Amino acid sequence: MVTVAPQPYDRVFNFSAGPCTLPVSVLEQVRDDLLNYKGSGASVMELSHRSKAYEQIIQEAEADLRTLLAIPEGYKVLFLQGGASLQFTMLANSFLAAGQSADYVITGTWGKKAIEAAALIGTANKIFDAKADNYNHCPDLASLPLTPGAAYLHTTANETIQGVDFLADPQLNVPVICDASSMILSRPMDVSRYAMIYAGAQKNMGPAGNTVVILSPEQLEKAPASTHPMLDYRIHAENGSMYNTPPCFSIYVAGLVYKHLIANGGLAAMQATNEAKAQTLYDAIDGSGGFYKGHAKPENRSRMNVTFTLPSDDLTAAFLKEAKGHKLEELKGHRSVGGCRASIYNAFPLEGCQLMAEFMADFAKRNG
Amino acid sequence: MVTVAPQPYDRVFNFSAGPCTLPVSVLEQVRDDLLNYKGSGASVMELSHRSKAYEQIIQEAEADLRTLLAIPEGYKVLFLQGGASLQFTMLANSFLAAGQSADYVITGTWGKKAIEAAALIGTANKIFDAKADNYNHCPDLASLPLTPGAAYLHTTANETIQGVDFLADPQLNVPVICDASSMILSRPMDVSRYAMIYAGAQKNMGPAGNTVVILSPEQLEKAPASTHPMLDYRIHAENGSMYNTPPCFSIYVAGLVYKHLIANGGLAAMQATNEAKAQTLYDAIDGSGGFYKGHAKPENRSRMNVTFTLPSDDLTAAFLKEAKGHKLEELKGHRSVGGCRASIYNAFPLEGCQLMAEFMADFAKRNG
Repeated sequence: MVTVAPQPYDRVFNFSAGPCTLPVSVLEQVRDDLLNYKGSGASVMELSHRSKAYEQIIQEAEADLRTLLAIPEGYKVLFLQGGASLQFTMLANSFLAAGQSADYVITGTWGKKAIEAAALIGTANKIFDAKADNYNHCPDLASLPLTPGAAYLHTTANETIQGVDFLADPQLNVPVICDASSMILSRPMDVSRYAMIYAGAQKNMGPAGNTVVILSPEQLEKAPASTHPMLDYRIHAENGSMYNTPPCFSIYVAGLVYKHLIANGGLAAMQATNEAKAQTLYDAIDGSGGFYKGHAKPENRSRMNVTFTLPSDDLTAAFLKEAKGHKLEELKGHRSVGGCRASIYNAFPLEGCQLMAEFMADFAKRNG
Repeated sequence: MVTVAPQPYDRVFNFSAGPCTLPVSVLEQVRDDLLNYKGSGASVMELSHRSKAYEQIIQEAEADLRTLLAIPEGYKVLFLQGGASLQFTMLANSFLAAGQSADYVITGTWGKKAIEAAALIGTANKIFDAKADNYNHCPDLASLPLTPGAAYLHTTANETIQGVDFLADPQLNVPVICDASSMILSRPMDVSRYAMIYAGAQKNMGPAGNTVVILSPEQLEKAPASTHPMLDYRIHAENGSMYNTPPCFSIYVAGLVYKHLIANGGLAAMQATNEAKAQTLYDAIDGSGGFYKGHAKPENRSRMNVTFTLPSDDLTAAFLKEAKGHKLEELKGHRSVGGCRASIYNAFPLEGCQLMAEFMADFAKRNG
């Protein structure tokens, strides 16, 4: 077995699917500014959201996110609360008007949850569902039978639990609304191809409790005044995400992550690193002579969540226990897939993947 | 002018109405555990909400909050997102059924917002409104004309902007739902008198982004299945606030605040300190020979938000500027009241109030 240098602060290799590992340099900055943020005399947690210091934080966070994703002018960027789960309801409540329908593409657990929430509000058509294959692939969107007049088409860019990813932006003549929670900022996206992108922050952006929504001007115009003001995109847009007190601290940390990504080459650089990290693990799976079996079909293998099974539950249990001994943690797969899941978001280091791959080879040799 | 010892970390006296000052010892603990929480090898921001380490954090937070408020058995405690503003909608969506009505008592800006959100959903009766007096007092609830058959009565325990507080728990034969955002944990409450208490965390509990909801078993039973799962109290209760990823870090800091309060004598001790702090400022107002005028009637003076005006806008501007020179910050009043507002939540130190009182006296002497 290879040995890697001790991790700073005696940290582990944290493969958690989210909340998940964040850049060490960002955490150090948070720590160093915790009692007194840049001479303001207060912690960011204590700053009024109306203060000049905090306004600068949220404005820079938005500007940096726009830079990273090359968000077209006119698109709104919102920092909201409630996670992707509240968006499941909020987007259907806003864009699935009476008499209309919307198309949903189900490639895993989160797509299922999205359509279930929408179906309580209006007509949600399931135009694709990979259930029969236990969600191991994504369809070619252009070949799907879109419903004429559908208000929007909903996709899940990357399914966190199953580890399947479209790996490309859609190009369709219908407004596409995309849950990008577990892949946003892992590679460049062509935002102009989407009517709306939303993402919980707790994978590639920072602590849980902050939800990013990116809305095209055309889509925002379609939002009616809601009977639920806090579910009204227009209200949040008109108030610059300050209709009520935003999740200030989570936005602050996300802003530091954005600056960190910009300083490290932006999303093209992240994509290259993420592909190298994922390839390291998929090579370990494919090179194991069938000891490890990847869950996703090769053409839809997620770069963020690598899912695989072992020959038996006993071996899986032994694998997880031994892995922990090497500080390779949070590898247990979701029960719907079984086996293991290695979530390797932006901040997860390449050397952690290398150590994992070597451990996988060693374990297979001893137990194959 | 008195001089106070330099504040640790060169911190200011932060009179912000929220987010607001937090206990220094809590912030120090957050800082010290930021890169590696208690040997877990990860920051709390990076811990899976399903991990043992995080489960312990949220369970202890709930247990400690139950201890502090002596919450009766059977009441549910939820940690949600969206602030009190989402509760305005969520509670009406859950408890204001078609054909029913609810009574609202309007003692300031937040009560107004609460009834506006409810009126979009159902029949909300304004049974008291102190608008004619610019919200300078609270009514005797027992003397109000309650609507027969009303589903609930809604109150705002303390109005943050106007600085008026009921200063007592209601005792009524109707389910009382109370927005306690800006006074919760500042004094003991008799929770059994309420059907529901809710509060944004960002005053006395921690960072913004976490909303505490306390629900009686009878009230929870009345909640129908909602068409919006994230607005369904039963779903959150059945899932122990983990229906989706909670605002983990905000709950963690709130939990540290709860432990800090327990270690410092609990809510009876907080009440004594808070009354002494508020009295220091109200004495400065009342002793100024009319230079400062308190906004709230004496019998409803808030212990958390001390609102007062000066003889002119010019003097107010000069006051705020000079105050800043003494590190007395965030004192500007809301435009609906004018003048100044000194928010002195639990973590605001008594010595800050003493310095403020002496500055007020000095300023009045020089400008009166």
